[in-house]
Amino acid sequence: MTAKLIDGKAIAASLRAELAARIAKLTEAGARKPGLAVVLVGEDPASQVYVGSKVKQTTEIGMLSIEHRLPAETTEATLLALVAKLNADPTIDGILVQLPLPAHIDADKVIEAITPGKDVDGFHPVNVGRLSTGGRAFVPCTPRGSMKLIKSVRENLSGLHAVVVGRSNIVGKPMLQLLLAENCTVTVAHSRTKDLAETCRQADILVAAVGRPRLLNETHVKPGAIVIDVGINRIADPATGKNKLVGDVDFDRVAPVAGAITPVPGGVGPMTIACLLENTLESYEAQTKKSGRFDAVTEWICASGNIQP
Amino acid sequence: MTAKLIDGKAIAASLRAELAARIAKLTEAGARKPGLAVVLVGEDPASQVYVGSKVKQTTEIGMLSIEHRLPAETTEATLLALVAKLNADPTIDGILVQLPLPAHIDADKVIEAITPGKDVDGFHPVNVGRLSTGGRAFVPCTPRGSMKLIKSVRENLSGLHAVVVGRSNIVGKPMLQLLLAENCTVTVAHSRTKDLAETCRQADILVAAVGRPRLLNETHVKPGAIVIDVGINRIADPATGKNKLVGDVDFDRVAPVAGAITPVPGGVGPMTIACLLENTLESYEAQTKKSGRFDAVTEWICASGNIQP
Repeated sequence: MTAKLIDGKAIAASLRAELAARIAKLTEAGARKPGLAVVLVGEDPASQVYVGSKVKQTTEIGMLSIEHRLPAETTEATLLALVAKLNADPTIDGILVQLPLPAHIDADKVIEAITPGKDVDGFHPVNVGRLSTGGRAFVPCTPRGSMKLIKSVRENLSGLHAVVVGRSNIVGKPMLQLLLAENCTVTVAHSRTKDLAETCRQADILVAAVGRPRLLNETHVKPGAIVIDVGINRIADPATGKNKLVGDVDFDRVAPVAGAITPVPGGVGPMTIACLLENTLESYEAQTKKSGRFDAVTEWICASGNIQP
Repeated sequence: MTAKLIDGKAIAASLRAELAARIAKLTEAGARKPGLAVVLVGEDPASQVYVGSKVKQTTEIGMLSIEHRLPAETTEATLLALVAKLNADPTIDGILVQLPLPAHIDADKVIEAITPGKDVDGFHPVNVGRLSTGGRAFVPCTPRGSMKLIKSVRENLSGLHAVVVGRSNIVGKPMLQLLLAENCTVTVAHSRTKDLAETCRQADILVAAVGRPRLLNETHVKPGAIVIDVGINRIADPATGKNKLVGDVDFDRVAPVAGAITPVPGGVGPMTIACLLENTLESYEAQTKKSGRFDAVTEWICASGNIQP
């Protein structure tokens, strides 16, 4: 292969090490640990695995990890009450409600119940809105991690043409905002895009986030492009008959063409939790330094006619 | 010229007539009038003209128009207190704080102080965020009006390539979200874009919102494209020596190439206030019908640990 391999596993490990060092400095100085609360409702196996590794990595870098595992039949009211409690808890800097939630719970309502100042997933409309308008906001973890991987190859992205394939709220749309903020010309392509290969071949930076195994191959990639593969798809390996993980990019066909490329697994995946921890530490710093990141929201809350004390 | 002329003045007039009819039906049935409060701080002449025509058109279609003209030296606290009063006022469905505000006032803080349910400009982060994620939100007036003009030419935009030139929070970014929601492939170009002409020539729908007189000409336009010119630039007319308004598009050079084009003046301009009135009427309907558009925000407010009753 000719493309530089972007080692997300190593980059995530060094980020976690850097965070651990910052936290050690704080706690050795007598400060409390940053705290991340993870709420899991129900028994979804994938969620349980994911929450498990979040908890493990949170404690490994010296943060306080609080887990709330609730039964699938938990009511929306009970979950909202727990979120309110965590919003008010001064030892908690980040609140993560693991999605998907059971069908009887309105996920948007729960996400909007998290105070934006602790919304380390960056899913609350206030954070989504501020990411768009350029205010201070929590950036969703996967796009934030993807941008770090791009920056590991090239620092100045100004004027480059970035193509994002996929327009999800969790990856595609926030990725678009981050690339715009770096002064890229940005194109968002998706299932309705007419000539996907032609569109993608314009990309100096190509971000694939559609969840379709090996959708993109060498016909989609401009020689020398930076290719970021966000997809994590489980397919049966004909060779072994066992399941294996593949991305949205056909790595073997694209690697000879691209200038740099992330593997799957070991690319974007490990960055997501590392950036969740970084968001939580930044929340801690914002709360303790009273940096005022969320003063305006507080103002809005206090000014709002909706409030019934 | 070959391009169809998109008559924004006429389309805005018929929208206002439709709104007036809906309001008449409501008030004849004994309901209160929808109310729009406009707050103007200071003496900015352009703002005064703009507020003047807002007030005129608001009353013309049968809405209640409340004007608050405050001196330039008004404090931020005074303005926030007024916003809180309007948030709580059941006769007010829309609140518009005219920008720009004097330098000593934090505009973001004021915008975030407006309760999202009355933010008919669609500038509050909650509305910006929901526009991005697909929730129910107020859409900023100029992009909403621009989309109506596009739809007056072609209903189904799915799969078309739209290029938005300009990435402002007021026009470019919300326009991008509206075009994505219509299943367009969307490219955002701006001052750092390398080959602007080549990028723009890909557009089936070209939206110019940069504020640079006649930046785009026939070299930027694919034959048959729908061209929406959001720019309103005042330049000296060499012929008369007087000032005249021109757009970001060189109309005379583009009209022979485009399939449809908006003039300046008389294109997007008149749509902006008409859509402000439409947003206000929809806010009224949401409040009176308790459609629940903003229940989730209320939940968030009540759940938030930030609140000190």
